[in-house]
Amino acid sequence: MRGKFITFEGCEGSGKSTQLKLLADYLNGLGVDFIMTREPGGSEISEEIRKIILNKNYDKMCDECEALLYAAARIQHLREKIAPALARGTLVICDRYVDSSLAYQGYARGLGAGYVEAINSFALKEFRPDLTVFLDISPAAAFERKHGADTDDRMEMQGLDFHEEVYKGYAQLMGRYARICAVDCSGSKFETAEKIKNLLKEKGII
Amino acid sequence: MRGKFITFEGCEGSGKSTQLKLLADYLNGLGVDFIMTREPGGSEISEEIRKIILNKNYDKMCDECEALLYAAARIQHLREKIAPALARGTLVICDRYVDSSLAYQGYARGLGAGYVEAINSFALKEFRPDLTVFLDISPAAAFERKHGADTDDRMEMQGLDFHEEVYKGYAQLMGRYARICAVDCSGSKFETAEKIKNLLKEKGII
Repeated sequence: MRGKFITFEGCEGSGKSTQLKLLADYLNGLGVDFIMTREPGGSEISEEIRKIILNKNYDKMCDECEALLYAAARIQHLREKIAPALARGTLVICDRYVDSSLAYQGYARGLGAGYVEAINSFALKEFRPDLTVFLDISPAAAFERKHGADTDDRMEMQGLDFHEEVYKGYAQLMGRYARICAVDCSGSKFETAEKIKNLLKEKGII
Repeated sequence: MRGKFITFEGCEGSGKSTQLKLLADYLNGLGVDFIMTREPGGSEISEEIRKIILNKNYDKMCDECEALLYAAARIQHLREKIAPALARGTLVICDRYVDSSLAYQGYARGLGAGYVEAINSFALKEFRPDLTVFLDISPAAAFERKHGADTDDRMEMQGLDFHEEVYKGYAQLMGRYARICAVDCSGSKFETAEKIKNLLKEKGII
């Protein structure tokens, strides 16, 4: 049986990395057969593309180039790593997926959902997530968490205005796709982890 | 007045680099205001993308990833280098453009013209070449020229079958777009150079 495909989404500072680590610990404890991977990256070629996307010196990168690089890294990662894992029945948990491109490049950068869907058409046709967990925190609170942290990441260096647009993009996607479930992250990290576990149980993933 | 935008196309081994060098010498002699650039590459970010595309170790690269990387390098090169040059009235001569993606990825790789046009839609809408010179030589003769030459280039390493498909792709494009003019390259390099000069004069480019 094909494995389930779960993606995690959220603004910078939403605590995604922390929650993914807590979830991995929990799944390991249960003995679940799973892999955890991330975008952009997750395979040798895609990690090379990631270095270009996030290079803080590339402030001249145009929005379309950014969107196309994300799409290129995504399809390579899908074909090389995610598809084989799903085919052997493994649960795949991916940090970011096509919804990130829709929220960041389609909405916040203003390229439009139509263009982002067109360049990601192979991914959208063949690999729709069974469940997408959106870590819901106000962009201001998320920004506050990241603020002051040293970063070399071109996307994390964007201002609060940009991240507010990203959040609006995600809100639109939630209205469109029932597979996206918001998890309120206003409590402690352990409270949030508990909510995520319950959601995964409720949806029959674990 | 906006500068003219001329692109050169052809299979590997068609003698494009030689002809572009001869043309540059000729245009310099005439004192024409022009730039000569190439795809994939032509700007700092696009050259980094080029390194990934052509890396001979990346034999796992899937066709969609390849097509998306070409499109990403293309739009960045357009925005950063070609558009400003055209805006100041400079003649721009580019070694390969979107027709290469249509022939190589759309036709020879089998992704289809529709997908390649969709991912290159911004380039196709905003920057159509005024003239495209197709260096016409049989794929077998072109392959013979390159054969035996050491190469680290993933595209040049493809077999003759692939290059025959690319040639068929170009033949289809010539049937579709009047802007593409074939130049017969069966003679000496100087005879071909003469034909190119005459074509550029005939089309009012120089």
